[in-house]
Amino acid sequence: MQPAADTFTLPDAPLNAWYAAAYDVELGRRLLARRILDHNVVMYRRADGEPVALENACWHRLLPLSEGALEGDNVACGYHGLVFNPEGRCVFMPSQETINPAARVRSYPVVELHRFIWVWPGDPALADPALVPDLHWNSDPAWAGDGKLIHVDCNYKLVIDNLMDLTHETFVHSSSIGQRSITEVPFEVTHGPNSATVTRWMIDVEPPPVWRAQLELKTGVPAGRVDRWQIIHFEPPSTVSIEVGVAPHGSGAPEGDRSAGVNGRVLNTMTPETERSCHYFWAFVRDYALGDQRTTTLFRESVASIFAEDEHVLAAQQRAIDDHPDKQFYNLNIDGGAMWARRLIDRMVARELPDERYVRSAEQSLAAEGERINVEATAADAERLGIKL
Amino acid sequence: MQPAADTFTLPDAPLNAWYAAAYDVELGRRLLARRILDHNVVMYRRADGEPVALENACWHRLLPLSEGALEGDNVACGYHGLVFNPEGRCVFMPSQETINPAARVRSYPVVELHRFIWVWPGDPALADPALVPDLHWNSDPAWAGDGKLIHVDCNYKLVIDNLMDLTHETFVHSSSIGQRSITEVPFEVTHGPNSATVTRWMIDVEPPPVWRAQLELKTGVPAGRVDRWQIIHFEPPSTVSIEVGVAPHGSGAPEGDRSAGVNGRVLNTMTPETERSCHYFWAFVRDYALGDQRTTTLFRESVASIFAEDEHVLAAQQRAIDDHPDKQFYNLNIDGGAMWARRLIDRMVARELPDERYVRSAEQSLAAEGERINVEATAADAERLGIKL
Amino acid sequence: MQPAADTFTLPDAPLNAWYAAAYDVELGRRLLARRILDHNVVMYRRADGEPVALENACWHRLLPLSEGALEGDNVACGYHGLVFNPEGRCVFMPSQETINPAARVRSYPVVELHRFIWVWPGDPALADPALVPDLHWNSDPAWAGDGKLIHVDCNYKLVIDNLMDLTHETFVHSSSIGQRSITEVPFEVTHGPNSATVTRWMIDVEPPPVWRAQLELKTGVPAGRVDRWQIIHFEPPSTVSIEVGVAPHGSGAPEGDRSAGVNGRVLNTMTPETERSCHYFWAFVRDYALGDQRTTTLFRESVASIFAEDEHVLAAQQRAIDDHPDKQFYNLNIDGGAMWARRLIDRMVARELPDERYVRSAEQSLAAEGERINVEATAADAERLGIKL
Repeated sequence: MQPAADTFTLPDAPLNAWYAAAYDVELGRRLLARRILDHNVVMYRRADGEPVALENACWHRLLPLSEGALEGDNVACGYHGLVFNPEGRCVFMPSQETINPAARVRSYPVVELHRFIWVWPGDPALADPALVPDLHWNSDPAWAGDGKLIHVDCNYKLVIDNLMDLTHETFVHSSSIGQRSITEVPFEVTHGPNSATVTRWMIDVEPPPVWRAQLELKTGVPAGRVDRWQIIHFEPPSTVSIEVGVAPHGSGAPEGDRSAGVNGRVLNTMTPETERSCHYFWAFVRDYALGDQRTTTLFRESVASIFAEDEHVLAAQQRAIDDHPDKQFYNLNIDGGAMWARRLIDRMVARELPDERYVRSAEQSLAAEGERINVEATAADAERLGIKL
Repeated sequence: MQPAADTFTLPDAPLNAWYAAAYDVELGRRLLARRILDHNVVMYRRADGEPVALENACWHRLLPLSEGALEGDNVACGYHGLVFNPEGRCVFMPSQETINPAARVRSYPVVELHRFIWVWPGDPALADPALVPDLHWNSDPAWAGDGKLIHVDCNYKLVIDNLMDLTHETFVHSSSIGQRSITEVPFEVTHGPNSATVTRWMIDVEPPPVWRAQLELKTGVPAGRVDRWQIIHFEPPSTVSIEVGVAPHGSGAPEGDRSAGVNGRVLNTMTPETERSCHYFWAFVRDYALGDQRTTTLFRESVASIFAEDEHVLAAQQRAIDDHPDKQFYNLNIDGGAMWARRLIDRMVARELPDERYVRSAEQSLAAEGERINVEATAADAERLGIKL
Repeated sequence: MQPAADTFTLPDAPLNAWYAAAYDVELGRRLLARRILDHNVVMYRRADGEPVALENACWHRLLPLSEGALEGDNVACGYHGLVFNPEGRCVFMPSQETINPAARVRSYPVVELHRFIWVWPGDPALADPALVPDLHWNSDPAWAGDGKLIHVDCNYKLVIDNLMDLTHETFVHSSSIGQRSITEVPFEVTHGPNSATVTRWMIDVEPPPVWRAQLELKTGVPAGRVDRWQIIHFEPPSTVSIEVGVAPHGSGAPEGDRSAGVNGRVLNTMTPETERSCHYFWAFVRDYALGDQRTTTLFRESVASIFAEDEHVLAAQQRAIDDHPDKQFYNLNIDGGAMWARRLIDRMVARELPDERYVRSAEQSLAAEGERINVEATAADAERLGIKL
């Protein structure tokens, strides 16, 4: 196994991409300040509800506009009263008739989709709404659920690493979802031109308590042994959507018919704040018991407490990275998904650089596209975890 | 509109100037540590009351002398007991008879005037007490009032900017003194060889509540419409004295006779602590109701709560400057006074530099001395603020 | 008097030395993280009690191993479950049979002696247990006592300076042990090839209260005037052992017979954490009333409260050094012991450097080996302190 490519010498994240900047409910007729890829942004909704994202520093003397106030669809600086419209143009200056046409703050392309406000920190000419990452389950009436926003003191790629390999559930979440069989079962890593996927099936296992309860909630009968799945989909630069669920063993789920089971999706999208911190937006949605608020709340709060364990580990990992600038990461088989994810990010970053060599290098590391990695359960795993293979 | 001269590439403040280091009441027969232009200073009064200012680091092993104790007019280090006299000379060393004549800490020129202790961080040979900024109203028996010291987390020039343009009252102090007519009325910016002045008259206006009450306190009769003034005087490097007041409309105040009105002075002098923080000494004094402690307390506490709003804005502005090292300030008409103030500071700094070019450049930017800027009320202001011109 | 050699341009501390990393009672069947000379170390005891010290960063993704868990004599990472044995070799990886033989974390030589766990951060081949500093009194059945660990926010050499000259007791500890005669009496500084010693005898003095009580505890009769001693022994890089005690005047203590008196030892060893902080391990032991826990507790808590005063001064001194990067230390006669200590440290550091010149320079500064410094009481001391010579 080779050391991971040192992605830290490239820029940390592509600029020409949509990044979740707020949950839909966070935005209203008030000013919300948020730092995104080191850009200070102020966001609000116009009277008609449309989201606006402006540079959060007055053209005149840099005071954050978020210290000011909304005036209709415009924002007025809280220091000397300069007013900027949603396009960032200054439309009022105190004590003078003439307004310098150069007086503007940057306006960011912004789109509301899948319950998130997406901001494009790069070249506005490239900001195609069709490029918003697919998290449609979060607003699809066939699915129900809810989520939260976490601020994590780590680079966003550490969260991607974390999500692309769920082996860590056994160790980080040993008291909740960390079923030991996760470490034991084989998994498969595949990738396409713009995606990476990790698939793990646990066949004929006892369902963990939370899934047993869900299956019984849906079917109304006691649950027996199940087939359980975790299918992790990565879309660059920073969206991870995970199919999770269980179906009665023998009901055909591995073959493609999950109708007898319970289907969930863990939706995740991370937005760099700085190189050492990120905004982590997530939701958990399901395709059954759609109107049951109790189930929505149960999942949201359970997932929130599980993710708090990850937050602790991720922040500790970031501090360790800062403490050991000379050390690199090494990859295990379990890191196959994360490795492809980082290569896809690298290619996006490379394409924004003036030097062709970066792109060629990134393309080469992706040349094995379509290659499949099969990872077998190991005897060592089984023995260590006391599981009979 | 030109970008503001980038004053940040010059040293931040002249060394050869008197800076307020303490309020008179702060100093006594105990050790007071304060950082002034990045100099660590320890201050105290001798037995006869004379102020002393020494470098706050023992010659021997650098322990702050402020951790030690007064011994008569001298200060003894709290670690090994070395004793320094008010001139900074070591007069006692433990366990040795001979005292190294080089053993001294720096002694700063110090003067007590206008209720402040002034320290000169530059060349002692140039420390002429006649150069102390004029804040004599603070100790003149014809005036009464009091003030405070605020520590602000911003460069001292941001406070000067703030004081040299009171337009911000409309936006920062909208709930207290922010009368909307301030933004509306014309003002005049003038400057002399060593001063800058901003004059604003509001003729025939309703007095704001605080001034109405003062006028009625003095005259004993209900107040009608007034002429109101704000005349801001800058004296480099960092003193701003503001004449404020109202007089019954038609009683001759604009023509020079303010005897029928109430006269106040907001006295301000800022001392850099570091490049990102300063000590802001202020007082509010008046020339009527001299013995009325209730009025003194009322003004002191009102001004303190208004300045706390500025402190919030100024610290936010400094953080924004630090967050956007690539951005510069732009100047509006309202910044005329601040612009001259910064040019006068630049010239003081330039004169301390070895390279003549800095002085020539500073002189050139001041070549328009005597020039007058008239700023008219704008229709946009009036419309925006709902005021009939 | 020459300025002190600027030891800060050399590395701060030698790597090839044993440093106290924990008190014996701190270590058990759990993971203890501690930073030592900027190395992050995790320590624990094997089932048989033997101490283990490993690099505190997982080979895989750098998570501190101290976030994980003990598994028998091994430690399992809390993220993905990699397991490392006491030699630092990885013995388990999740989901794979083959373990990369390069997968290891650094294992540090470790020795338990004199109630401390000693770690060797340098070349393991040189880690000879015979080089552990001599603090045997801490586990010698002929002596009794106890100690503590303090974290001090200063460079470890400042603690050495502090201990090598007890003049500071007069000023820092004026309310407890700071007998004025300490500053007054002569002292002698000597040094050998690998040691520095400061000897101070106070002949025919009133014992300070704490020593009077000890002498009466041992002898059962009222104490009269005594001979008091402080003999400070430095062993590089950072161990200071101090003989302290009193004996009835005339009972022969200065001549070598202390049997009629009470003997104590203040044992100190400092371990750099970073260049601006250290772990300070200490104990106070005595050779009488061995079974008297009351005396043990009394001394431990008295010394702890005295050392808290030093901690305050030392942290203030470190901040002052950081605030005045341009300033150097000056040496007085009282600094003779500390000066030799620093030269011995410099030579250890120099021997680890590739350039011979450093060693030659260090040897030269130690060329006066065997030289003796006699420091007389001064008339100025006596007059100042009101003591009759």
